[in-house]
Amino acid sequence: MNVAQSTIPPLPPELVAKFRQIVGDKYAMTDAADIEPYVTEERNLFHGRSPLVLRPASTAEVAAICKLASEHKIALVPQGGNTGLVGGQTPHNGEVVVSMRRMDRTREIDTASNTMTCEAGVVLQVAQQRAAEVDRLFPLSLGAEGSCTIGGNLSTNAGGTAALAYGIARDMALGLEVVLADGRVLNALSKLKKDNTGYDLRNLFIGAEGTLGIITAATVKLFPKPHAVETAFVGLKSPAQALKLLTISQNEAAGTLTSFELLAHIAVDFSIRHGIGVRDPLPNKHPWYVLMELSSPRNDARDTLEAILASAMEQDIVDDAVIAANLTQRSAFWKLRDEMSAAQKPEGGSIKHDISVPVAAVPEFIEQADAAVVKLIPGARPVPFGHLGDGNIHYNLSQPIGADAADFLARWHDVNDVVFEIVLRLGGSISAEHGIGVLKRDELPEVKDKVAIELMRSIKAMLDPLGIMNPGKVL
Amino acid sequence: MNVAQSTIPPLPPELVAKFRQIVGDKYAMTDAADIEPYVTEERNLFHGRSPLVLRPASTAEVAAICKLASEHKIALVPQGGNTGLVGGQTPHNGEVVVSMRRMDRTREIDTASNTMTCEAGVVLQVAQQRAAEVDRLFPLSLGAEGSCTIGGNLSTNAGGTAALAYGIARDMALGLEVVLADGRVLNALSKLKKDNTGYDLRNLFIGAEGTLGIITAATVKLFPKPHAVETAFVGLKSPAQALKLLTISQNEAAGTLTSFELLAHIAVDFSIRHGIGVRDPLPNKHPWYVLMELSSPRNDARDTLEAILASAMEQDIVDDAVIAANLTQRSAFWKLRDEMSAAQKPEGGSIKHDISVPVAAVPEFIEQADAAVVKLIPGARPVPFGHLGDGNIHYNLSQPIGADAADFLARWHDVNDVVFEIVLRLGGSISAEHGIGVLKRDELPEVKDKVAIELMRSIKAMLDPLGIMNPGKVL
Repeated sequence: MNVAQSTIPPLPPELVAKFRQIVGDKYAMTDAADIEPYVTEERNLFHGRSPLVLRPASTAEVAAICKLASEHKIALVPQGGNTGLVGGQTPHNGEVVVSMRRMDRTREIDTASNTMTCEAGVVLQVAQQRAAEVDRLFPLSLGAEGSCTIGGNLSTNAGGTAALAYGIARDMALGLEVVLADGRVLNALSKLKKDNTGYDLRNLFIGAEGTLGIITAATVKLFPKPHAVETAFVGLKSPAQALKLLTISQNEAAGTLTSFELLAHIAVDFSIRHGIGVRDPLPNKHPWYVLMELSSPRNDARDTLEAILASAMEQDIVDDAVIAANLTQRSAFWKLRDEMSAAQKPEGGSIKHDISVPVAAVPEFIEQADAAVVKLIPGARPVPFGHLGDGNIHYNLSQPIGADAADFLARWHDVNDVVFEIVLRLGGSISAEHGIGVLKRDELPEVKDKVAIELMRSIKAMLDPLGIMNPGKVL
Repeated sequence: MNVAQSTIPPLPPELVAKFRQIVGDKYAMTDAADIEPYVTEERNLFHGRSPLVLRPASTAEVAAICKLASEHKIALVPQGGNTGLVGGQTPHNGEVVVSMRRMDRTREIDTASNTMTCEAGVVLQVAQQRAAEVDRLFPLSLGAEGSCTIGGNLSTNAGGTAALAYGIARDMALGLEVVLADGRVLNALSKLKKDNTGYDLRNLFIGAEGTLGIITAATVKLFPKPHAVETAFVGLKSPAQALKLLTISQNEAAGTLTSFELLAHIAVDFSIRHGIGVRDPLPNKHPWYVLMELSSPRNDARDTLEAILASAMEQDIVDDAVIAANLTQRSAFWKLRDEMSAAQKPEGGSIKHDISVPVAAVPEFIEQADAAVVKLIPGARPVPFGHLGDGNIHYNLSQPIGADAADFLARWHDVNDVVFEIVLRLGGSISAEHGIGVLKRDELPEVKDKVAIELMRSIKAMLDPLGIMNPGKVL
């Protein structure tokens, strides 16, 4: 997808030289081959172009870049691990890319305060490892964790599979360091859980997708490492039954219920059919499945999980269930879930949605959406799965068997209209965790409160009056 | 304390009539006697004045008030339960008061989504009761809960005694409805845990102390009601030992550790001496105490608490401890804690601070602050107590025995200088949970990051260009 909508004038060589001076020769790239990895992305869905990729090593260098860009009205695209799914990290119009990956220091870990201060370019998996090394948990966890960065996670307010108990990226950040469009540095790094000295600035930059400034460092919360993790794979009849199981689980396990994933039969089937070494954990087929996990600081997770499942079976909510007997089985359950997105590929074209509705409305949403999309495209196969505990469903749709993939994908916007109408009627969101980027930018004004859009525009104008920070994204 | 700093011209009678029309005769008060309860506050520390108190019943009425005020540049002071401690809710300069207490409907409770939508004027205790009636917990809990309101709690980002496990007010709000200075209504009410459609507007208004708009309703999170609550009163040698106990407790109890209060010997003494029916739970005196509580959805809290205390005793961290045997004993432990602020009164003048530092820095802070204030005022008696788990200490100081209270209180700013210097050096905050209001307004620019202050001013100018929303507060 090429999303060129405005033309940015070519960068004069004397400016390239000035930018080069800031980061050093080696870290200012102008060769097409060097630039290529920064202007495309894994799925090859978006392809941009850029005359210059800068790789700053410090907050001061980022500040100098922004100041220079501001003085000459040069547009910048901040980039972390380049794993975003909505084209937010791509220079669609020839902007300068500011890659944050060299800022990869863990500045401090404080185990008594349970905090960790990381630079923006620290890879999520590295942050998890740093925490584990001091017997702590950094719970943010998602598919791209091997390459995505803390800065990107915060800029896009990442969600993931542990949000149910630990929250989303926004909830994990105690403090931020941000370089503003004009090069000023906001030092709001803080280990404090309580600080009521003025307006909350931190949350303005979290989830802003790099359009208001560049996050250069963050202080995040650490948690006690759970000592017992227990995982169950459950067969049941419907999303409504899954919702009942969720309520029982929350009442019994409270904060120790760390994952609760709803999986449609067809999603499990695809995963078994196309995933390598993926097997069905249950002897019989069920219309719906739940993958649930408890993580406890004590050795009670197994007892609690067994009590939940026994109670749910007694009430005919659950039809069958198996608890992972060891780490290998647990990994196998999760592999089945993690393969789901990839397993749709061999089934042809797929139209994907990352929506959320109030938790209570998930069964109604799935029922209505299934009916609506099949009416729109007879034979289309809904493949819903996702984080029921957060009301966040990846409502994907595989093409009818034997249909033409391109024809099917051409209906993406028609499907959006139908699905988003239901989402909005139920009080939901068209982007639960992936953000807006360019992919949903033009739909945003249609679905969002009018005053909210006005305020967003005012904030953008206030913080980036020249419009140089990741232009054309979000708004 | 009269904080008149600017003169607001008298309100023309024809404008009073227009405001009166919006809310109805009965709810527009101009008589001094009717107005009195809205311009003073419980402690009689602040006394303001106002020509008009408005008591709107709906969001539409609040919007009409703001629109009219905006058209005629009339300053407004939003007010909830009038329990704030920093003068934020007082009309110091003859502003019109907008009392939100009539907007007291619970609009919806959704037990499957675990959400409750309340209007701003719902009293906190009523909100707790509504949640309890449907077998849920609304965990925000603080001294003023019998009169403070949800709108005020969110506007001041209240903390309280359960923040350790459940977070502060900010963490509990999923969505907001806000009337802006010009009368526009931002509808950001939402039950969604994940919604990445644009900038976070909610957190801009939470903690803004009514200076950016008036919160008229909120959707807050509910939690499973804990089935077992266990409370211990612990004697130990120092804040450093208390910090070790905190780490053990968090590792063993994780999210079920719901309170962890550090109490100085002298604070306990004052409470026993002056509180009615307050007794020492332990047979012998100890230099420091911890009041800790576990709340579990299952029946394991007692076992966990016993295991924590046994382990801490074995490591010589804890010298003595008693677990409440029943609800009466538990209430007695908490009464001892809750009386602490009041119990300072009979001891003469007291200078109070609501500070926070990184959790790990609390022992160092107390040691340094004790030395510094006693050096400044020989004989002054530090009475520190508070939420160690949040790094939030109410660092209070009672006057020297036999000294003149007025003389002592005249040193308030000198004491601030000494205490705040230590707080800032340790990376702390001069207002952990009470906010800025007028009390700390003039200190804020001294202690806050310069760019943060600049951004706060820009945000204020953007959202309230006429400066009519709670003028003179925060900034």
